[in-house]
Amino acid sequence: MKYYGGIDLGGTNTKIGLLDTNANLIFSTSIKTEAIKGFEDTVDRICNAFKEEVRKNNINYDDIIAIGAGIPGPALDKRVCVGFANLPWPNDLKMADLIEEKLNKPCFIDNDVNVITLGENFAGAAKGYKDILCIAIGTGIGAGIISGGKIISGKKGAAGEIGHLVLVPNGMLCGCGHNGCFEAYASATGIERIANSELVVNRTSSLHELKKVRNIEAKDVFDAAKNGDILANQIVDKEADYLALGISHGLNLVNPSVVVLGGGVALAGDFLLDKVKKILPQYALSATLDGLEIKGATLGNDAGIYGAAYLAMTELGE
Amino acid sequence: MKYYGGIDLGGTNTKIGLLDTNANLIFSTSIKTEAIKGFEDTVDRICNAFKEEVRKNNINYDDIIAIGAGIPGPALDKRVCVGFANLPWPNDLKMADLIEEKLNKPCFIDNDVNVITLGENFAGAAKGYKDILCIAIGTGIGAGIISGGKIISGKKGAAGEIGHLVLVPNGMLCGCGHNGCFEAYASATGIERIANSELVVNRTSSLHELKKVRNIEAKDVFDAAKNGDILANQIVDKEADYLALGISHGLNLVNPSVVVLGGGVALAGDFLLDKVKKILPQYALSATLDGLEIKGATLGNDAGIYGAAYLAMTELGE
Repeated sequence: MKYYGGIDLGGTNTKIGLLDTNANLIFSTSIKTEAIKGFEDTVDRICNAFKEEVRKNNINYDDIIAIGAGIPGPALDKRVCVGFANLPWPNDLKMADLIEEKLNKPCFIDNDVNVITLGENFAGAAKGYKDILCIAIGTGIGAGIISGGKIISGKKGAAGEIGHLVLVPNGMLCGCGHNGCFEAYASATGIERIANSELVVNRTSSLHELKKVRNIEAKDVFDAAKNGDILANQIVDKEADYLALGISHGLNLVNPSVVVLGGGVALAGDFLLDKVKKILPQYALSATLDGLEIKGATLGNDAGIYGAAYLAMTELGE
Repeated sequence: MKYYGGIDLGGTNTKIGLLDTNANLIFSTSIKTEAIKGFEDTVDRICNAFKEEVRKNNINYDDIIAIGAGIPGPALDKRVCVGFANLPWPNDLKMADLIEEKLNKPCFIDNDVNVITLGENFAGAAKGYKDILCIAIGTGIGAGIISGGKIISGKKGAAGEIGHLVLVPNGMLCGCGHNGCFEAYASATGIERIANSELVVNRTSSLHELKKVRNIEAKDVFDAAKNGDILANQIVDKEADYLALGISHGLNLVNPSVVVLGGGVALAGDFLLDKVKKILPQYALSATLDGLEIKGATLGNDAGIYGAAYLAMTELGE
C-alpha cells in the first residue's frame, strides 16, 4: 500500500495525518503550532511528530510517497508560502523545501481553503465532481475553486478570496481594511458584530438577556432564530441574503457543479441552507443553477489532512 | 505550413478566416448570418464561403488541420451549443458535428467571449500570459477566464458571466430579468440608459441639445466628458466605479496576471482606464493587484477569428 502524509498548519493547532490511496485515515494527531517560537521550530516539531506516529503505527517509511501541507495564506507553485496574515513568519517562506529536508519525501503546499476543497473532493461532499466551489464560513470567509479537476490558484496564489468581494460599497469595515466585504457581513464574526450592534437598540429579543452576561456568538443567533426570536430571524434572513449574493458571484464566474459550504456558520444546516437556496435565483443566472447541488461539508476538521494528502497524490499524478 | 480555420458566428454577421500556426491571418471574409433561414442554411453558407476562400487563396485543403468556431451562447464539451439567447435556433445544437460533416475537418466550438479571450491570448494583448481575465464591454458584458493556460468553462459552459454579477441588489432591471446586474449599469446600453434618463431632469449638459435630435449613445457621453461636460463626467465616474467593482470580483476570485478590456466601451481608452485603475484598490485585495496588468484588447473585430483558430490548435494539442 502507498501512503501520503497530510499536514494542516493552523494559527493555533497543526493537524498531522497519514492516508492511503483509498482515503483511509491511518492516523491523525495534533500539536500546538506555537508559531512565536519561529518557523524552524514549528517545522521541526511537525516533522518529528509525523515520524513518531509513523513508527508507532508500524508503517514502513519507504511506503510513504509524499507529503502535502495546507498553510494559512496564499501559496505559489505548490512550494512557497507567499505570506502569513496571522503568523509572525517571513514572507516567501520555502515551506516545501523545509519539510522535504526533514522528512526526505517530496512535499507540496497550498492555501488551507484550497486544501480543504481538495479534501472534500477526495473523500467528502464533493467526491466525484470536477467543477467545485467550496466556501468555508467561519471567523472569515474563504473559497477553494476546482475547475475541470484542477485547483484555480491564480498568479500569486490569491484566487478564491470570495470573502473579500465587496458586496456593500461603503459598508461595514472588514479586517482587510476595505469596506463592505462579504466576510464583514456573513462570517461568524460578521453575524456577531451585527447582533451585538443591533442589541444596543433592540431590547425585546431573547438575546438581550444573554448579552448582559457575555458577547453574543453566531451560534446564539441561530439558536434564538430557531426558537422564533424575531430579531435573530431578521439577522439570519440577512445572512442568507448575503450568502446567496456572494455565492451567486462564484456561480456566475465559474459555473460549478457543486457548492460545498463548510466552517462554523454552515453548521446551522438546512435552517440556513434552505433560505439561501430560496434567494439564489434572484442573483444567479438560471443556467448556473441548472442541476447545481449545494451541500454541507462532511469532513469537518479532518478536511485539511485529507486534502493535504490528496494534494501530494494529485501533484504526483497518482 | 499547417492552417486552422476560424469562424466567428454573430447575430448579424459571421466572420470566417484562416490562420497559420504563427498567427498570420491568411484570409478573412464575412457573410450575413441570416439566422432566420435556419441553422442548416447558415452552416451551409459558412462552409461554402470557407471552401471558396481556401480555393481563391491557393491553399492546399490537406494542409488545413482543423476548424474552430465561436458561438453567441454557452457551449458544452467544445461541441454542443447549449442554447442561443438571440438566434431562433434549437437548444443543444451539435454545431461541431454539423461543421465537421460539411468541411471534413475536426471542429471545436466555444462561447464567443471565451474565443475572443483565446484570440487575445494567441496574438493580442494577453499573449504570453497563463492567467487571464478578458472582459468584453459592449451592448452587454461578458468575460472569458483562462487559468493556468486553460479556459474555465464550468459545468454547463456558463462560466465567465461577469456581466450578471448583481452589483446593486434591487437596482436597475437587466435584460436577464434580474435587477442590478453589472451589465445593466456598465455596458454601453447601461451608460445610454443612465444618460438618457438623467437628461430628462438635467437641462444644462451639452448632451441635452443632442438628445433633442436622437438618443444619446455611450460614445456621446465619453466625448462630452472629455470636453468637460459635468453631467457626462459624473456618468463616466460612476461607470469607472462599476467597472472597478465588477473587475475586482474577478480579481479576488481568480487572481489573473492580466485583465484585457475589449468591446465598444473600452475604446474610451486611458480616459476611462486610468479612472478604473485609481478606484480598483478600494475593492480588490492588494495581493491581486500586485504586478497586475490592465490593457485594452488589440485584435478588435478579428479577435474571434484568431481565437477560434487557436481553439482548434489548442484542442488538438498543437
